[in-house]
Amino acid sequence: MSKYQEPKNIKNITVIGGGIIGSSWAALFSAYGKDVKISEPCSETRNTLLERIKKAQKSIKILNNVNLKNKGKIIICKSLNEAIHKTDFVQESAPDKSEIKKHIFKDLDLNLHRNIPVASSTSSLLITPLQKYCKTAERFFTGHPYNPPSLMPLVEISGGEKTDELLLEWASSFYSLLGKYPVKLNKEIIGHIAGRLSAALWQEAVHLVSEGIADVESVDAAMVNGPGLRSAAMGPHLTYHLAGGQGGMQYYISHLGKSQEKRWSSLGKPKLDQTTSNMIINGVKEAAKNRPIKNLEEERDLAIIKILKSKQVSNKTKK
Amino acid sequence: MSKYQEPKNIKNITVIGGGIIGSSWAALFSAYGKDVKISEPCSETRNTLLERIKKAQKSIKILNNVNLKNKGKIIICKSLNEAIHKTDFVQESAPDKSEIKKHIFKDLDLNLHRNIPVASSTSSLLITPLQKYCKTAERFFTGHPYNPPSLMPLVEISGGEKTDELLLEWASSFYSLLGKYPVKLNKEIIGHIAGRLSAALWQEAVHLVSEGIADVESVDAAMVNGPGLRSAAMGPHLTYHLAGGQGGMQYYISHLGKSQEKRWSSLGKPKLDQTTSNMIINGVKEAAKNRPIKNLEEERDLAIIKILKSKQVSNKTKK
Repeated sequence: MSKYQEPKNIKNITVIGGGIIGSSWAALFSAYGKDVKISEPCSETRNTLLERIKKAQKSIKILNNVNLKNKGKIIICKSLNEAIHKTDFVQESAPDKSEIKKHIFKDLDLNLHRNIPVASSTSSLLITPLQKYCKTAERFFTGHPYNPPSLMPLVEISGGEKTDELLLEWASSFYSLLGKYPVKLNKEIIGHIAGRLSAALWQEAVHLVSEGIADVESVDAAMVNGPGLRSAAMGPHLTYHLAGGQGGMQYYISHLGKSQEKRWSSLGKPKLDQTTSNMIINGVKEAAKNRPIKNLEEERDLAIIKILKSKQVSNKTKK
Repeated sequence: MSKYQEPKNIKNITVIGGGIIGSSWAALFSAYGKDVKISEPCSETRNTLLERIKKAQKSIKILNNVNLKNKGKIIICKSLNEAIHKTDFVQESAPDKSEIKKHIFKDLDLNLHRNIPVASSTSSLLITPLQKYCKTAERFFTGHPYNPPSLMPLVEISGGEKTDELLLEWASSFYSLLGKYPVKLNKEIIGHIAGRLSAALWQEAVHLVSEGIADVESVDAAMVNGPGLRSAAMGPHLTYHLAGGQGGMQYYISHLGKSQEKRWSSLGKPKLDQTTSNMIINGVKEAAKNRPIKNLEEERDLAIIKILKSKQVSNKTKK
């Protein structure tokens, strides 16, 4: 038998950090009936926390067409030690700085029973270097959500060198029960999968602007009205499989592989120097057409809900 | 007054090439009431052409919720000269090889009145080198659709060195009248915008597989359940604008610009050598789970229709 509690029996969850990611995780966990303790040292952030959680839960309601009658309790704590009392699972979502994470990992290592799994939401750090400070290293892993975690299905799971492999399987089951789509990496890498794909995309997007090929708004419009429309249905590999026509990827690589390599070598290597940064900052300002960040976020979340709903219908149709 | 016919008065359209792109363009033009002559030298391709056009028109019907009662006539021709008789506009969609395009451009240069605009669907060639063979160079430009053109809104418009700038404006109006979303490039570049963004994305996707970070199916799943869900609503630049929180792009670049540059420099430069090619080909085979290309294409088109429909609703709600 596994030394970890059965995923379906997890009832009490600790979220460390009440920022954008932590509050959204808390909203999700509570919506799925878990009791959540969330620790946040900054009083200003604590003051807006419940409001932000409620807003995220509104989106979850709309997405899933449910009334969330059996929401779990949410308790906001000042200290980490208060928040981990009698917890079954920890989702660490503190600021993404190694000094901060180091202190938290050390604290959990000392004060939390070693069979309690600890997931880190880190998007730009690795677990291996942080495990050096922990005697209970095996229960620390990456459970990286995609923003906003309340809505986005993706959770990227990976372990450091000392992470228990069984725990990664456990994590996949756990997140699946919360309606998430877990993707397990064979080894950890900075940026995981989605962050690296996004960085690759933006790199060329910046290059096209810096070379004067098109402005920020046009580059974004090309994505949104072109490849972006398929990206919710089909990943990059399957996309190129279809680009090979009836012969699929085999045909594509043998007939167009060389020209694709040439295309790759022609992609840009921009720098975010003063000139390019100004082009991007001003271009985004124009493209945003005076919509404040808050409105853009709302528009994005509404669009994501609609796209996710359209996929729910497709999946039902398929069955 | 412009020497080109008013976009709304264009009635007769020639499509050169009856392949995947040409047949889909023909379906669109005819659905919008234009009479279409389509030239295709290969009898085998001609034999399946009408069937493919009808299938594409079925999707257009579903997407727009209309009955297409006023479809334009479609005439299939063996020769180019037959197809350009009394035409108002040419959409060249022949195989993407410079030798083939050169011959077609020369032919059109000699035999088609110089005020008739010629758009090329080329995805990997430039107009400038082809203009060298033409006395009427100014009326040739790129009007690159995104596959399938019958459904996808994007048309990328760019000119060669000798292209009439006014013609590019004309083209924007023309494609807009067909429900397309034209994006004009300031200067032409191989792969235009969307093809280059897709190449950048796939390059890192191949890298992650070749390094053993994750398999083909997992990489695709990370996209589809993560960043891919926002890509139909928000391009790469606006996405990073939101990643900067309330401070937007300005905050993002000043606080995270350096780490993003570091991320960029860590992105992979894979080669499609035998080992990597096999990993990708076999991985795609597994991910496709025995679904033939035809089924995958149908699934993709259905998903695109659903996503486009969800966007139609969003746009209506906004008004």
